[in-house]
Amino acid sequence: MVNLYIALLHYPVCNKDGRVVTTSVTNMDIHDISRTARTYGVQRFYIVTPVMKQRELVDKILDHWRKGYGASYNPLRKEAFEIVDVKESLDAVIEDVSGREERKIQVVVTSAGPRGECLRFDEFRDKLRDGSDSYLIVFGTGWGIAEEVMTRADFLLESIRGPGAYNHLPVRAAVAVTLDRLAGIH
Amino acid sequence: MVNLYIALLHYPVCNKDGRVVTTSVTNMDIHDISRTARTYGVQRFYIVTPVMKQRELVDKILDHWRKGYGASYNPLRKEAFEIVDVKESLDAVIEDVSGREERKIQVVVTSAGPRGECLRFDEFRDKLRDGSDSYLIVFGTGWGIAEEVMTRADFLLESIRGPGAYNHLPVRAAVAVTLDRLAGIH
Repeated sequence: MVNLYIALLHYPVCNKDGRVVTTSVTNMDIHDISRTARTYGVQRFYIVTPVMKQRELVDKILDHWRKGYGASYNPLRKEAFEIVDVKESLDAVIEDVSGREERKIQVVVTSAGPRGECLRFDEFRDKLRDGSDSYLIVFGTGWGIAEEVMTRADFLLESIRGPGAYNHLPVRAAVAVTLDRLAGIH
Repeated sequence: MVNLYIALLHYPVCNKDGRVVTTSVTNMDIHDISRTARTYGVQRFYIVTPVMKQRELVDKILDHWRKGYGASYNPLRKEAFEIVDVKESLDAVIEDVSGREERKIQVVVTSAGPRGECLRFDEFRDKLRDGSDSYLIVFGTGWGIAEEVMTRADFLLESIRGPGAYNHLPVRAAVAVTLDRLAGIH
């Protein structure tokens, strides 16, 4: 998946009441999503937050596992963390991907609820294999990606459904299922 | 998936060096896996630990979200936590499932590395739909399920693979991908 990038957005996202907020970066998200992204061959995993103190904290955690004691204690964690980066905005992520890619970058947003026309997983899998464009999938924290990001995306990915009406996957699970559907060996 | 149960095992599991140990229950596992299990229609999600203090802690967390302030703050979390239970051993889990089921219970163990003959995901999906038996999938914490549990299981589930050699999903991601492959609407 040389043409696949993912981003975990902490701003702008919605809270429980639909207001636009900034969520906190969590240590578990960094660990879980980096290991999942590495397993499925994602090129880069970007953590996006406008809060400088939080970006500094992420850098400190990354340094511990990439260069510090963690790197020798757990080399597999080091390998996962090598693809992680932290940026202040989605624009900064797109700029960074542009610097690495000759291909056109398509931004794909995700949502737990179905709304409007969607890119189906099987279509997306074919597009990735085709290889003519590169793709950045954006996952929201909190109660989901804010409208201003949803509307400027190139594609809205089909939402993940189980057999029943309950549909509240943690973002860490949503990332795993999405990547497995797109890049897993079935 | 009226015939599907899952268990998260904290003993007996292996540590980094292959020794049999007891791992700690984590708050994140309870939250993430219960939401994922509920989304995919799992009947019961059992947390298995022989440590009484940890079982008491899990019960306290479950009570907060099922009956306490958490239940009114977040009804969706309440709904997820209704399927969670904590048991002292895998035998106690099997006994509990037996009390709920007329059908034969088949124990399915999971492993990150391929070893021996496996139950393929598509075969397992068919078995679940067939509905003649019920199934308990066991997920290990730490560095995986100890040999003594592996050998007494009815089936070993095919391991999850990404496109490359790196294969170190967090258990929370492994549960999500497994359930999506078995019960997701694709």
